[in-house]
Amino acid sequence: MVCTIEINEKPKLNDPVLIEGLPGIGFVANIAALHLISELKAKRFAEIVSASFQDFAVTTETGGARSPINELYYCKREDGGRDLIIWYGNTQALTTFGQYELCGKVLDIAQELGCRCVISIGGFKKDEVQPVPAIYSAATDQETMKETVDLGTKVMVGHIFGIAGLVVGLARLRSLKGFSLLVDTLGMYPDANATRYALMTLGKYLDLNVDLSKLDAAAEQTKKVLESFGLIRNVAEEKKKEEQQMRWFI
Amino acid sequence: MVCTIEINEKPKLNDPVLIEGLPGIGFVANIAALHLISELKAKRFAEIVSASFQDFAVTTETGGARSPINELYYCKREDGGRDLIIWYGNTQALTTFGQYELCGKVLDIAQELGCRCVISIGGFKKDEVQPVPAIYSAATDQETMKETVDLGTKVMVGHIFGIAGLVVGLARLRSLKGFSLLVDTLGMYPDANATRYALMTLGKYLDLNVDLSKLDAAAEQTKKVLESFGLIRNVAEEKKKEEQQMRWFI
Amino acid sequence: MVCTIEINEKPKLNDPVLIEGLPGIGFVANIAALHLISELKAKRFAEIVSASFQDFAVTTETGGARSPINELYYCKREDGGRDLIIWYGNTQALTTFGQYELCGKVLDIAQELGCRCVISIGGFKKDEVQPVPAIYSAATDQETMKETVDLGTKVMVGHIFGIAGLVVGLARLRSLKGFSLLVDTLGMYPDANATRYALMTLGKYLDLNVDLSKLDAAAEQTKKVLESFGLIRNVAEEKKKEEQQMRWFI
Amino acid sequence: MVCTIEINEKPKLNDPVLIEGLPGIGFVANIAALHLISELKAKRFAEIVSASFQDFAVTTETGGARSPINELYYCKREDGGRDLIIWYGNTQALTTFGQYELCGKVLDIAQELGCRCVISIGGFKKDEVQPVPAIYSAATDQETMKETVDLGTKVMVGHIFGIAGLVVGLARLRSLKGFSLLVDTLGMYPDANATRYALMTLGKYLDLNVDLSKLDAAAEQTKKVLESFGLIRNVAEEKKKEEQQMRWFI
Repeated sequence: MVCTIEINEKPKLNDPVLIEGLPGIGFVANIAALHLISELKAKRFAEIVSASFQDFAVTTETGGARSPINELYYCKREDGGRDLIIWYGNTQALTTFGQYELCGKVLDIAQELGCRCVISIGGFKKDEVQPVPAIYSAATDQETMKETVDLGTKVMVGHIFGIAGLVVGLARLRSLKGFSLLVDTLGMYPDANATRYALMTLGKYLDLNVDLSKLDAAAEQTKKVLESFGLIRNVAEEKKKEEQQMRWFI
Repeated sequence: MVCTIEINEKPKLNDPVLIEGLPGIGFVANIAALHLISELKAKRFAEIVSASFQDFAVTTETGGARSPINELYYCKREDGGRDLIIWYGNTQALTTFGQYELCGKVLDIAQELGCRCVISIGGFKKDEVQPVPAIYSAATDQETMKETVDLGTKVMVGHIFGIAGLVVGLARLRSLKGFSLLVDTLGMYPDANATRYALMTLGKYLDLNVDLSKLDAAAEQTKKVLESFGLIRNVAEEKKKEEQQMRWFI
Repeated sequence: MVCTIEINEKPKLNDPVLIEGLPGIGFVANIAALHLISELKAKRFAEIVSASFQDFAVTTETGGARSPINELYYCKREDGGRDLIIWYGNTQALTTFGQYELCGKVLDIAQELGCRCVISIGGFKKDEVQPVPAIYSAATDQETMKETVDLGTKVMVGHIFGIAGLVVGLARLRSLKGFSLLVDTLGMYPDANATRYALMTLGKYLDLNVDLSKLDAAAEQTKKVLESFGLIRNVAEEKKKEEQQMRWFI
Repeated sequence: MVCTIEINEKPKLNDPVLIEGLPGIGFVANIAALHLISELKAKRFAEIVSASFQDFAVTTETGGARSPINELYYCKREDGGRDLIIWYGNTQALTTFGQYELCGKVLDIAQELGCRCVISIGGFKKDEVQPVPAIYSAATDQETMKETVDLGTKVMVGHIFGIAGLVVGLARLRSLKGFSLLVDTLGMYPDANATRYALMTLGKYLDLNVDLSKLDAAAEQTKKVLESFGLIRNVAEEKKKEEQQMRWFI
């Protein structure tokens, strides 16, 4: 049991695009994915559990026990556009090893479903952010890069940490195309505004018209989920966390 | 040799319930499991060694060398009630990876024996505890949650660390049912009183009448085993422990 | 490549005993093994490299590049006594995981060669040591324990860290017999005197007469090997070591 | 996905020599490999991605997303000399485990292509370095050692960290021949001068005449690549790095 995937359905998809939406800086990707799933009524077809996730359960308000998990959803479009595979979850893997493992497995599944294009979304942490945040991109190839610049993005300079960077880099090594969209954010809380601009840019690229009026609700729900998984913490919690380091030891 | 399991017998069991009883906060689960094994004369049928356990041996009073180990016991009930699989041990795994591996293997075995219900027991660390401690629960599903609340438990809010949380979360992902019982405890020593209330609640759920008069003896034995494995330490030992960090290096 | 074993020869052995002799406290086992190999003209039949060893090479005086390695030797006795398998090396594994892996592989080979008895040797770190150091033992079973006590050892109380403990604990779980011999040592340098008493006790048990006059030379050679592998360090080296943490980074 | 290798071509080579050229102290090997690839118009035939590399992407000036990667190139010589396999990359593995894995895989491929000789290059960090730096060597065997001393190298004394040491040590255990060339360097920046002397010595050994006039350009390019991968940092970046530790957590 390193990285277990349970696939409930193998959807037939039209030239699908994989959209990565795990928790990261500003939780931009995570809110975006949740909103897309909700607005597009995307259907879950795979669940992924990795031994590199945290070893605990968290509880819902009604006492439901939840595990760290990643999920894959698909959305078949009726407007003739390319179908979507949405990669959602409440965690990334804890170790470099686990990140590669997880990313490799998801790309395997996506490719099996005919995916040749991968898009990751992320926050670009800044100390100050304008009301209309700047958007950056980095791509697998020159042609895709040109397309993303045409969408109004700037050339990304620097590191793209975590799955957002890994998935585009590995996509390139697999001869897939793709890019990473990075939006300016303070990064301290689930950033609905940054997500709005990410989704607007994504919408332009995919010719996809998504209603953004309920985006704040998605941000709120993301905040709640991630707080319960300890990915958003305040100082008091941070201290408690240290005490919990001992975990099952006294 | 990641996680080696030696199965001596594959018992035929009647709709068995897996009860997790590894060392954790207040050692509530560990005492409970030891007491159940002893009172119900449960029979050991599997031994589990993981490369994620500590790499040492400890000695008994008579010079016996003992390894970190997990064991599975079964108990066939003659009163027509559901049979039990008891998961006992002197350690959890040291790494997240090892925890998932261990938990996955035990669930594999339990499911092979027909198990569809998993119960974990744990302590809920508090700074102050009443003589009659509060008991909390979190469950895989609404129906089971209702049953546990009917037993007199409160809704658990927060993280359930270690195997106690993991096993219920993973059970849910495997479409098993189950819940975690968490009892208020100071958590600083093997807590016989907390265990008493855990076992009373468990007894109600399983329609199982267990004599609790020898519970203090089980707590005492648990203390002895866990001290020898270094899971209960005092300050002096803590210091010595640091020195031993160098272990086989000078 | 987790743990690679190259076996050059599968010797036919008479009820062989596995003797563990890796570097540890006081390097008692390591000196003992080197001395036995040399005096008994034991023959190397297997080399073991683990991905859990350190990632470097060290150099001999003449510029030879040497890797961290473990080796197995055998000694066929002409006096009718039980044959020996000697487990020698310049390192233990760096991680718990690697230790279990390594130990499991060596036990696999030993069992394949008919081994049913395992002896580990170690130092028992004390602040003060008598000229005739005390010897302790811990065994897999009561019968073996009685035999070791009859050799003049005391009952060991406490933890036996590293491979010395692991191999006896795992032997027990494999239904092999065996014990650990632990000699009082300051533990700060390769302790020829402690080794002398370990070998005398071992000799009694195995009915094996080994000339101990060249033991100081074995201790000296052990010191040289282990210094080159960084297992014996002084303060100056310790500081340098810290700087080298950055290793191949600037 | 532990260590994935994609082989595009299996070249037929004449008694090839594997030359290790990953980033290390003074980046001597890395510059040397890049220069050899460029001057000899070596052809890439394999790409290697390891789960033990860092989990990020870096960007080129034009927004290209690049992953941590290792590559193998070959060079067929027309002067009748031995062909070359050049091991180039922008990173070593992050863990000991990953280093062994990586090294084992590359040696597997090299041996499959008929390689029986391995050369690693490295910097030997000194506080002061002469304009003509000293060169040291360590070899798998006495005969090879004599050859390297005849090239004007001194006998290396000490540890050879990382892949440079590992590959020669493991080569020896595989009965291959080889040596490590280590040049005095301050180690603080890509050292073109040290590389010059390494390549002159290597050229002598391989009877290979390489134009060294563009070596500064190779050093400059190496600096650029490695800066983008965070292997060369200044204090300001170091601080930023710490902040990024939290990576995808807020």
